[in-house]
Amino acid sequence: MLIQEYYKTRKDILEKGLEDLLAPNSEYPKNLHKAMRYTVMNGGKRIRPILFFSTYEMLLGRKNKKRIERVLPAAIALELVHTASLIHDDLPSMDNSSERRGKASCHVKFDVPTAILTGDALITLAYEVLTNFKSSTDSINCIKILSKALSSRGMIGGQAVDIISATKKININTLRYIHIKKTGALLQASVEMACILQEVDENITITLSNFALNLGLAYQIVDDILDEVGSYDILGKEPGGDLKNEKATYPLLLGLEKSKKTAEKLLRDAHNMIKNMNNNEALLEFINSITERLP
Amino acid sequence: MLIQEYYKTRKDILEKGLEDLLAPNSEYPKNLHKAMRYTVMNGGKRIRPILFFSTYEMLLGRKNKKRIERVLPAAIALELVHTASLIHDDLPSMDNSSERRGKASCHVKFDVPTAILTGDALITLAYEVLTNFKSSTDSINCIKILSKALSSRGMIGGQAVDIISATKKININTLRYIHIKKTGALLQASVEMACILQEVDENITITLSNFALNLGLAYQIVDDILDEVGSYDILGKEPGGDLKNEKATYPLLLGLEKSKKTAEKLLRDAHNMIKNMNNNEALLEFINSITERLP
Repeated sequence: MLIQEYYKTRKDILEKGLEDLLAPNSEYPKNLHKAMRYTVMNGGKRIRPILFFSTYEMLLGRKNKKRIERVLPAAIALELVHTASLIHDDLPSMDNSSERRGKASCHVKFDVPTAILTGDALITLAYEVLTNFKSSTDSINCIKILSKALSSRGMIGGQAVDIISATKKININTLRYIHIKKTGALLQASVEMACILQEVDENITITLSNFALNLGLAYQIVDDILDEVGSYDILGKEPGGDLKNEKATYPLLLGLEKSKKTAEKLLRDAHNMIKNMNNNEALLEFINSITERLP
Repeated sequence: MLIQEYYKTRKDILEKGLEDLLAPNSEYPKNLHKAMRYTVMNGGKRIRPILFFSTYEMLLGRKNKKRIERVLPAAIALELVHTASLIHDDLPSMDNSSERRGKASCHVKFDVPTAILTGDALITLAYEVLTNFKSSTDSINCIKILSKALSSRGMIGGQAVDIISATKKININTLRYIHIKKTGALLQASVEMACILQEVDENITITLSNFALNLGLAYQIVDDILDEVGSYDILGKEPGGDLKNEKATYPLLLGLEKSKKTAEKLLRDAHNMIKNMNNNEALLEFINSITERLP
């Protein structure tokens, strides 16, 4: 199976799951349920669920749609909390982004209170979904991983530092902290859930978790670089936004050349971490897709 | 043991648990961790945890501090999500309340983004705490109850309707819906957690859940009445706020006399639901404390 086809079929399984889960637009309170659907079903790349599925099937040793449907709750929960974080990050008092993937962001399409409540409802729904595993142990393990990734010491803490940093000069360590927490934590949770559901050894979990962290950091650095030298088509949004918002970026703090070298090293290390694992094609493709974006 | 003493000891156990759980103010990111402590440790009445403990010990058939320390995760989770809901409700785009229990509300003391993230972090922390039961089944059962109570069909849905209703005339059914969801849902979750941890029959759970709902509705109606005829001392805040904010209230929609009768009936029914249960003293006191506020 071609890798793009593999991704597509997994994405379809996820989106069917999301579709079935979300309340219909017609359900009271309508605004809230419409906003939940609008934000979740908005053509996202579904990177976290696909990373989860890819890791799970690599560890399983074969591609098996039936088996991944059994672990669908984890994939759904990852996408729901990711969406919730985007909704809250986009708010006027946070990053003040009026667009998300070429469409009006939630608080623009609806209003600010609805956007806040939609984020809250999606976080709660994510946890509810995670209780749906057949085994309580699987549920509890995934809930623990998700809570750690989201917490004030995880993604939410990263966003808190990002907000504070918007108004002052920060150094590369703080920028790295923001990327580790804001982007890295949930990617790590994605592979950690796959590992715990497959009950693999702790050292494999640590390796794959580091792999996911490297992916996240490399992705963010490449995004920073493209914001400086990329085009709308590659970036998926207007470049130059960070500079305009006076946002600290890797190129700003390290220079373009050193930023590129840092990203390349992260990707090379990521490759080394998984190169000897069997059935690693789908995970290798994650590295390739980031490498290809490097200008 | 006097009932007030009983409440006090349970409150102390809860607050010790919260104190031990929350990250220190000095932990990075400091603003977020300070805001979490500031909002959670702010002298609340802890009604939901105390209702949970009271129900649990009634069903247990005796008062036993060791036993309630084992179910502390449920009490803590209830208080954390309640606090999170107050923080988000107080936001300028929601109810725009700058005070909470005589102190600056979270977004005033800190700022709006920190308040949003503090609410998010407390919701996540609540779920994390619920994974701490010795038995996975207890954890999963409580997480299911919490998710249902918070969801877009529960407390968050109630807040969504409340926000929409602020700008238009609503009828008594909508007001009742708001009270059921915004206040009732989490009180019901409090007794439902106690029931499931004691594995009682479903009909007892239903009765106690209805009892909690009646308490919540009666409390809200009495609050509405006091807003019209009460004093600062009884209400704990400046009366007349609802009228000033053009908020729909029971007295406004039903008149003072009929509102009072509705509250009295809810409390009488609540009394009938539990009057034949053994060891019901602490629960009866919940009814008394609301009855005493009735002017």
